[in-house]
Amino acid sequence: MQNDKKITTRKEDFSLWYQDVIQAADLAEHSPVKGCMVIKPTGYAIWENIEKILDEKIKEYNVENAYFPLFIPENFINREKEHVKGFAPEVAVVTHAGGKELKEPLIVRPTSETIMYETFSKWISSYRDLPLLINQWANVVRWELRPRLFLRTVEFLWQEGHTVHQSEKEADEFAKKMLNMYEDFAENYLAIPVIKGTKTEKEKFAGAEVTYTAEAMMQDGKALQTGTSHNLGQNFAKTFNIKYLDIDNKEKFAWQTSWGVSTRLVGALIMAHSDDSGLVLPPKIAPIQSVITCIYKNDDEKVKVVKYAEKIKNGLEKTGIRTKIDDRDIRFGEKLYYWEKKGVPVRVEVGPRDVDNGMIIYRRDDLTKKPYQKSVEVCVETIGKLLNEIQNNLYNRALEFQKKNTVEVDTLDEFKKAINDGKFVYAHWCGDTKVEEKIQEEFGATIRCISFDQKKEIGKCIYSGKESAGRVLFAKAY
Amino acid sequence: MQNDKKITTRKEDFSLWYQDVIQAADLAEHSPVKGCMVIKPTGYAIWENIEKILDEKIKEYNVENAYFPLFIPENFINREKEHVKGFAPEVAVVTHAGGKELKEPLIVRPTSETIMYETFSKWISSYRDLPLLINQWANVVRWELRPRLFLRTVEFLWQEGHTVHQSEKEADEFAKKMLNMYEDFAENYLAIPVIKGTKTEKEKFAGAEVTYTAEAMMQDGKALQTGTSHNLGQNFAKTFNIKYLDIDNKEKFAWQTSWGVSTRLVGALIMAHSDDSGLVLPPKIAPIQSVITCIYKNDDEKVKVVKYAEKIKNGLEKTGIRTKIDDRDIRFGEKLYYWEKKGVPVRVEVGPRDVDNGMIIYRRDDLTKKPYQKSVEVCVETIGKLLNEIQNNLYNRALEFQKKNTVEVDTLDEFKKAINDGKFVYAHWCGDTKVEEKIQEEFGATIRCISFDQKKEIGKCIYSGKESAGRVLFAKAY
Repeated sequence: MQNDKKITTRKEDFSLWYQDVIQAADLAEHSPVKGCMVIKPTGYAIWENIEKILDEKIKEYNVENAYFPLFIPENFINREKEHVKGFAPEVAVVTHAGGKELKEPLIVRPTSETIMYETFSKWISSYRDLPLLINQWANVVRWELRPRLFLRTVEFLWQEGHTVHQSEKEADEFAKKMLNMYEDFAENYLAIPVIKGTKTEKEKFAGAEVTYTAEAMMQDGKALQTGTSHNLGQNFAKTFNIKYLDIDNKEKFAWQTSWGVSTRLVGALIMAHSDDSGLVLPPKIAPIQSVITCIYKNDDEKVKVVKYAEKIKNGLEKTGIRTKIDDRDIRFGEKLYYWEKKGVPVRVEVGPRDVDNGMIIYRRDDLTKKPYQKSVEVCVETIGKLLNEIQNNLYNRALEFQKKNTVEVDTLDEFKKAINDGKFVYAHWCGDTKVEEKIQEEFGATIRCISFDQKKEIGKCIYSGKESAGRVLFAKAY
Repeated sequence: MQNDKKITTRKEDFSLWYQDVIQAADLAEHSPVKGCMVIKPTGYAIWENIEKILDEKIKEYNVENAYFPLFIPENFINREKEHVKGFAPEVAVVTHAGGKELKEPLIVRPTSETIMYETFSKWISSYRDLPLLINQWANVVRWELRPRLFLRTVEFLWQEGHTVHQSEKEADEFAKKMLNMYEDFAENYLAIPVIKGTKTEKEKFAGAEVTYTAEAMMQDGKALQTGTSHNLGQNFAKTFNIKYLDIDNKEKFAWQTSWGVSTRLVGALIMAHSDDSGLVLPPKIAPIQSVITCIYKNDDEKVKVVKYAEKIKNGLEKTGIRTKIDDRDIRFGEKLYYWEKKGVPVRVEVGPRDVDNGMIIYRRDDLTKKPYQKSVEVCVETIGKLLNEIQNNLYNRALEFQKKNTVEVDTLDEFKKAINDGKFVYAHWCGDTKVEEKIQEEFGATIRCISFDQKKEIGKCIYSGKESAGRVLFAKAY
């Protein structure tokens, strides 16, 4: 199962590089079912960490987890007209079950608004039942013809939050809170800086009033959405009859939000930080944060070295650092390469002489190494600090890269060049969806968001020449 | 949403009682999709605790989590002849996706042996790749025409472990280890005593060589399987071509196991411990272990009481006890009943006088109450001890019930009576599947297992009169 294929460099072919990194780190593979992936243990452990951290954050907002059916009756999906337009082309349909043809086909959930809201309408009768704050960890299915591991797969894993509120303001504030939660998670855990903003009418979620997004830059300059949150207004409430008796004794339609992140985040992690030697993981997300590799020539040396390695491991685990000892009898270079491509943030090397003289500590982010004293305490303290340093360094490196590759342009020529160079481009746009579509057609770039930090600045649309109230963020995207 | 319907007693109608307890505790409900349930926050929190505890245990055996596709090509299921016989009648089939008819229909996984083993065959080439130890937390679908919440639903959540080994002995030992893990979990966490044993040929898993089971008695005397583990022999290895080059340089088929538990365990929890007042939960599984209910007549009293309640809560949470304060302004009786039916193991009542004189502590298992001193420290210590006591009491109560309702019989008349009285019945059986089928037809009882503790005792089959080498466990079952 060991795979020693050389990793394509990012410069040679970014897309091949991405696949090679996944293969080298043993994260996932294509399954025998077209479009579906097998998430292998190392890849799944990353997702488990994402899930664990995010689940705690979500619960801090008093959101409760629940579980709704995988199947959705076809007529539910068809009820909200924008929603059906967005999802109908990509659904998988169960037509037969238990040996019989079903009277009404069942859709395998592409998202759960409809099945949840039909149920919510029975749960809610009074303002006392609000806010209703529900989250679900689940698999969803959207038929994809050009699958890419983690980024675009027929089935993926995600969390979908769905909330119901008494007022438009409360719903909108909650939707923004969740976006901020995703921002915090992306920046402080995934070490990926994001730009928050609003999606255009064209790009918003099918059925939403407003869609908020957090957009991140990958190392090829393309954008990837690391979190999205929708203010659904009363669109679904009216369709699914979610009404409540308000304190003023009047019956009113409720206000809703939905928000989610998926296994795409694993793809974002890979493309934001990894290098030509393989996977690079931010310490807070890495399933293994430090690995102790043992070097020995004979059994006596092995005993001595492993005993010492275990002391370090115990010390590290006491401070909560996830650690593994590699005492396999394989070549030094092979061991080095093995952990390098797996992205473990810190590697400690212990040989027979290191036991007496101190060991060497390698950091994965910049591939540097440093000798350290032999004291276990010093080693543990050093690694703890180093993990923080690596976490910060990855974030800063990504932020610097993003800033360096973000430009403002005023002409279509500049725009074209910048987009082709893989930049994030702030440019004036007149607000017309048709212009947005033309730009996408001609340059392959979409409006990622109207940034919350948009400068107030009157200008001229780069395409139509019409007046614009501010620059919006264009980029090629995943 | 509050539901104040009286709970049917167990004596009146056990099946209605079960539904009422679920509704009163707000655990789950039938969904708009026939056969599928909505697991509500309180019910899902129980499942999350099960998942968390079991996941840690599974990982202690070096089993790694992974994720395989929801969909299985039809021809995979068809390959193993026993397996297809077992599952074909109850599968759901996706025939259309992405707006087109699929060339090959896809089965929504009823279990993942086939899709996993097809993949395993590519992962394994040498004895060095063994053992391969994989677990998956997922949803599965089996078409059920008579759904019952948690016990039998079209979709349910589960964990399925799948391992590959170098020898028959190693695989069999691993299958038994996993059964022991389930026994430990059932007895020491769910507080449900189990009887471990082997399934008969008729009752074993479709495709297994041997199926091991842990059987528990519910309060109506029926059996419910709280865990199952299969020694798959080489059946699937031969079908899916899982071969490895052994240390002797010979290519050999591998040996496999699979094992799982599901959201049925929540049903088992309910039926093992709950009473006519509603849900009763073992403290180790209870999402809320203690609730502090505040009693007050005016705002001044409320401030005083809540402040004191928060002191207790902080004290309890420091020792890791999951605690909630209920300071709602509702009637005393309503509050009492609310937490009683939700099954929270310990309830502390704090009124304005209790702040000075000490509070009253209620235990849910036996519905008794005791006054305690006012000291927060004493209260916290008392509750900690009480939770242990309740955990043990529930187990002992269930064990006593099981023993009291287990009999040995030697004649068909005795057998019939005992089965109708809802007993676990140890009786001699000749080993003939036809006899087993007849007994099921005539008396509605199945062989739950051939117990690992089976006494060596020659006897005569209660049905055929032929010689038998020992008694087997019969019961009606869920």
